[in-house]
Amino acid sequence: MTAIDHLGIAVAKLEEALPFWRDALGLELVAIEVVASEKVRVAILRPKGDAHAARVELLEPTAPDSPIAKHLEKRGPGIHHVAMKVDDIAARMAALAAVGKPAMDSAPRVGAGGCMVTFLHPKSTGGVLLELSQPPAGGAHH
Amino acid sequence: MTAIDHLGIAVAKLEEALPFWRDALGLELVAIEVVASEKVRVAILRPKGDAHAARVELLEPTAPDSPIAKHLEKRGPGIHHVAMKVDDIAARMAALAAVGKPAMDSAPRVGAGGCMVTFLHPKSTGGVLLELSQPPAGGAHH
Repeated sequence: MTAIDHLGIAVAKLEEALPFWRDALGLELVAIEVVASEKVRVAILRPKGDAHAARVELLEPTAPDSPIAKHLEKRGPGIHHVAMKVDDIAARMAALAAVGKPAMDSAPRVGAGGCMVTFLHPKSTGGVLLELSQPPAGGAHH
Repeated sequence: MTAIDHLGIAVAKLEEALPFWRDALGLELVAIEVVASEKVRVAILRPKGDAHAARVELLEPTAPDSPIAKHLEKRGPGIHHVAMKVDDIAARMAALAAVGKPAMDSAPRVGAGGCMVTFLHPKSTGGVLLELSQPPAGGAHH
């Protein structure tokens, strides 16, 4: 099954963005984590008590060469990517390549929480940076 | 409870965008509807068999002065807005106004499927055009 896994939103400072998403909108803050490989600090928010619902992930750069720092520079804060949860990422990547929409990696790589992930360039998707994510066997951490 | 209701994605032609989201990614096409008030034709997609999950809505303009036509002109295709489902939209709007983030309407208005809706300007949210949507009593149509 394919479903929206999370929405990645670029922010300059997590602590300044959190009051809106958590307090004013009413999402639950599950965790704040550093993902060193992506040079981001991430605040993971989800509907209260629903571990399976699509999440909002606020992304703060941890270095000037972080992809999020570049996004903030070029486009300002806002939606950076959409992640779709898929059952079989390798099969999905093959199906996409077969219709002329290859992923940005030749094989899935290990992402946060042990997920297997890859990205599709906005040119392939109609303007959306799209992450594909296959949860680890036994379920994702969040 | 607050949760992601749907992601609105601006496309030039529904029929050209659908093969990617439906066939290559594996979402289910639930309906194609015209929302005359917003001057859009909408393809509603969701995870197969999950009526409660966050949806992807592809938005095609039906007139040159459609908000989606303007988005395509200025920014090209891609994410137009994020909609959050809320329990009590009036209370949520009051809470947002109280922290200096008033909605773009003074009171919620009736949207597609009988939902009560309003929007928050990207300036208030950190760069995201955000729809708030309260499903009609008895549940949303989709």
